Amino acid sequence: MYIEKINSPSDVKNLNIEQLEVLAAEIRKGLMNRLSKKGGHFGPNFGFVEATIALHYVFDSPKDKIVFDVSHQSYVHKMLTGRKEAFFDDAHFSDVSGYTNPQESEHDFFNVGHTSTSVSLACGLAKARDLKGDNENVIAVVGDGSLSGGEALEGIDFSAELDSNFIILVNDNDMSIAENHGGIYKNLKALRDSNGSCECNLFKAMGHDYLYVSEGNDIGKLIEAFEKVKNIDHPIVVHINTLKGKGYAPAETEKENWHWCAPFDVETGEQKFGGAGEDYDSLTCDYLLKKMKSDPKVATVVAAVPVCIGFTEEKRKEAGKQFIDVGIAEEHAVAMVSGIAKNGGKPVFATHSSFFQRTYDQISQDLCVNGNSATLLVNTASVYGMNDVTHLGIYDIPMMSNIPNLVYLAPTNCEEYFAMLDWSIEQSKYPVAVRIPCNGVIHTDKPVEKDYSDINKYQITRQGEKIAIIALGDFYQIGEELAKLIAEKTGIAPTLINPRYITGIDEEMLENLKKSHSKVITLEDGILNGGFGEKIARFYGSSDMKVYNYGLKKEFLDRYSVKEVLEENHLTPELIFNDIN
Amino acid sequence: MYIEKINSPSDVKNLNIEQLEVLAAEIRKGLMNRLSKKGGHFGPNFGFVEATIALHYVFDSPKDKIVFDVSHQSYVHKMLTGRKEAFFDDAHFSDVSGYTNPQESEHDFFNVGHTSTSVSLACGLAKARDLKGDNENVIAVVGDGSLSGGEALEGIDFSAELDSNFIILVNDNDMSIAENHGGIYKNLKALRDSNGSCECNLFKAMGHDYLYVSEGNDIGKLIEAFEKVKNIDHPIVVHINTLKGKGYAPAETEKENWHWCAPFDVETGEQKFGGAGEDYDSLTCDYLLKKMKSDPKVATVVAAVPVCIGFTEEKRKEAGKQFIDVGIAEEHAVAMVSGIAKNGGKPVFATHSSFFQRTYDQISQDLCVNGNSATLLVNTASVYGMNDVTHLGIYDIPMMSNIPNLVYLAPTNCEEYFAMLDWSIEQSKYPVAVRIPCNGVIHTDKPVEKDYSDINKYQITRQGEKIAIIALGDFYQIGEELAKLIAEKTGIAPTLINPRYITGIDEEMLENLKKSHSKVITLEDGILNGGFGEKIARFYGSSDMKVYNYGLKKEFLDRYSVKEVLEENHLTPELIFNDIN
Repeated sequence: MYIEKINSPSDVKNLNIEQLEVLAAEIRKGLMNRLSKKGGHFGPNFGFVEATIALHYVFDSPKDKIVFDVSHQSYVHKMLTGRKEAFFDDAHFSDVSGYTNPQESEHDFFNVGHTSTSVSLACGLAKARDLKGDNENVIAVVGDGSLSGGEALEGIDFSAELDSNFIILVNDNDMSIAENHGGIYKNLKALRDSNGSCECNLFKAMGHDYLYVSEGNDIGKLIEAFEKVKNIDHPIVVHINTLKGKGYAPAETEKENWHWCAPFDVETGEQKFGGAGEDYDSLTCDYLLKKMKSDPKVATVVAAVPVCIGFTEEKRKEAGKQFIDVGIAEEHAVAMVSGIAKNGGKPVFATHSSFFQRTYDQISQDLCVNGNSATLLVNTASVYGMNDVTHLGIYDIPMMSNIPNLVYLAPTNCEEYFAMLDWSIEQSKYPVAVRIPCNGVIHTDKPVEKDYSDINKYQITRQGEKIAIIALGDFYQIGEELAKLIAEKTGIAPTLINPRYITGIDEEMLENLKKSHSKVITLEDGILNGGFGEKIARFYGSSDMKVYNYGLKKEFLDRYSVKEVLEENHLTPELIFNDIN
Repeated sequence: MYIEKINSPSDVKNLNIEQLEVLAAEIRKGLMNRLSKKGGHFGPNFGFVEATIALHYVFDSPKDKIVFDVSHQSYVHKMLTGRKEAFFDDAHFSDVSGYTNPQESEHDFFNVGHTSTSVSLACGLAKARDLKGDNENVIAVVGDGSLSGGEALEGIDFSAELDSNFIILVNDNDMSIAENHGGIYKNLKALRDSNGSCECNLFKAMGHDYLYVSEGNDIGKLIEAFEKVKNIDHPIVVHINTLKGKGYAPAETEKENWHWCAPFDVETGEQKFGGAGEDYDSLTCDYLLKKMKSDPKVATVVAAVPVCIGFTEEKRKEAGKQFIDVGIAEEHAVAMVSGIAKNGGKPVFATHSSFFQRTYDQISQDLCVNGNSATLLVNTASVYGMNDVTHLGIYDIPMMSNIPNLVYLAPTNCEEYFAMLDWSIEQSKYPVAVRIPCNGVIHTDKPVEKDYSDINKYQITRQGEKIAIIALGDFYQIGEELAKLIAEKTGIAPTLINPRYITGIDEEMLENLKKSHSKVITLEDGILNGGFGEKIARFYGSSDMKVYNYGLKKEFLDRYSVKEVLEENHLTPELIFNDIN
């Protein structure tokens, strides 16, 4: 096998086209080995095998610098830059992350996981090169799906004015995670249909030189194109048309399902998803579908991750025009839902906690300054959420909860979650965000509040004495266990509080606690810095109340064990009990 | 005068073209009256007189909905929608803000002040219209300068797929605040030069129908164009070419200086700027210019507000290629400086606190996850900064300081500011932000620290007892006054601490304080929620130390008196002294 001899990109250069094609087949075997057993980004990598080989054949990495967008398509690059064992040898799977990672290799320049950043990051490398008087090639790889993101468009616009080498490789497979949305995709189609020759050209309109390669899975054609632009003295867009999932029939036909895959049976293509129990994705989808059917003013908005709230292709069809996928365009989504609410609609925008980071300014300016009653649905906002360093869901409380006017709600169980969501959709007074629980679907048989318009009123779920536990959102269950433990160990039952509102404090209740309590414990599923518990600590700052805040340390975690992180942060009933005694 | 009879847009419809032209001249008199006495956005309004008249002549506001981008060009709209006194009658100047404002008029749909939001906000109005089955026109006004912003590009891309009425009015005066930057401006020029007929067309490439009006200051031509698109059943871009500052010679020729003006002498065009003393804009510019000349690897980056750090046209020329204006593209700027630092450059990106809000995700993901040593210079981050609700500088501490890996520094005087900035530029270990003081240029004759690499080490500037005052950044001077007052009133001098680091706490020092102090007072120039003082409160939460946090309430302020806001928040030495005793 040729792959056995490939330890760095220079080894790629020793092969001829025929050999490189064999190498491509070998690489797909390595991808298949890892992906079928471990899961990961399937379509993006299978489609980009030839382009990666050609890039490393033509350019001289790491002197020449390749920056991958999202970098979920960098598996092949990893194989060619000394990390092939992580694909061929099961014992080495965990040697590499699913994204580029400078800690792994000098061929990786950035930790990347969010979309639409490669052009801007690469611009920086190019600018520094020019300041230093160096002359390497800088190549930004970006998929067609990422082109709808504002950061990518800003970067493409800016980079057109560089007066030095800069190559943007647009990997166009005519797909985002799901289908693409936005006017630019009509132009990409026109470019593909005209073999790159149609006069109206997005990239030229943004000031770039342009080269089209129709056969984006043909190593020879790609090498020819890359050799043309190598050492070019100005910016250029190289637009290649690839087939997402190429080389595996199920992935070629069912592109959305194979963008990312769970472990699967190679023969049948059947993916092995986790437990068959309830999950909030499909519960949320069912709820919203029903809501939309009963009220034409309700709209569900997503930004290229429809399945994050269960909207499969079928469900999207069912929702019709009330379901809006804006593409990768979170900023636009938040501003738009503000406008929908302003004009009498009832919009819900859902995405992952980590992707809400794109919208701080829009939440503040477009939404909260205007006080429009849109609903933001914050998913995987939890230590139990995604655990790659670029996709963490533990920062949204400090990011969002300190924005004035926003009402950010933290449900503690399934019934409360849907009650909060329903209240939010129906009210017309506040911008509201709801943090979807992430610790499994936990039901309650107790009645839950339907009306949350009495803002910042906490709920005492168990009246006790001496110690009060204020347990926010999906750490409420830790609070319950802690209360039980304290009662068992001391004979005195503490008070348990469900604060419900992340964005404010119930001063009256906190004041009352002083009468019969001497210790307050707060629990929150996110970093402590700038979070919920610190506000309680501030409230009691000059009083005799002792306040203990529990949550996560401010740090970037990566591929962590939840159990270990919880223990490190003393987030178990036993550790907390020891701390406070 | 016709303007006397204009109390709502319907009155505009009664005039003929000739009369409307007279009205335009009258409107410019009103603009001149207000702007020469009060200052404000000159060029954008003078250039948009005819277009605003034509919009209100053709469309039926408020049924038809006009959304202004930035809305700094909405003065004429205000005059035509019942608010003319605010321009003609000096006693009524403060009746209106400098931006659209739904609290002022049903003809204003959003509080807007940041750029590039109008298309997305208007999309929301259009979507809600369609959900409700209504049929009004929705018009988004956006300037050419705002087109480089990611949010605008996302909105333009998305809106092309609306299958209903949507009109984007591109007001192209070939200027941002300063000159435009980015590849799309070559295309706008080509469109202007070809009377809108060139085949390669940015807007068509983004999926839009298109109409060009070369004479964007000709009321008749504009009415004709707007009538063509009124009630159109699909999205269209109407691209008009206007003259920024039209009608006042100094503004037509010196467009950058007249984008925004201070009060001025109408005869001479001489603007009356405030005090002739030192200011941080020009001091920062001088420092950076010197730094860039001595080191070719240093680069200064701005996003369309070069003068925010003193870089006038002349200074920009002097800096040459080491000065980079990315246009309105803050997201791109932060990602790019991360890339510059990664490849060995020494970049500094400066903008206003309020505009850093666009970059939360880029600071977190592109910069801090990667740990690259770029410098962010945060301007007007203060209660003493800009005081429109859309431009407040009091939220950056909670927004930025809870992002892992960032070192956010708060200098307390001029010498410390430049020492911190210099350290930041020269070190290669941390992403660093520096909060430019905003309470005047205060000098010290004491030596200041040159090396800030001992992260989170606070500085005791005066050792005392009983009470410790931790006074952050430009509230340090309030801390000094408070210390003096306490010593005077009680005879016991408190300890005064300059914490310097916003992003961390000096646990050792705080622990030590317990020995001889019973009260800690924190002071910070920003909202308390999620800020600096709460971290101190958390640290001492379970101890006997009494903690008093002083800063601002979490709220959106608007056109406030600094003195009143400080008093409301007990931010005077006297009020604090009373509180703690």
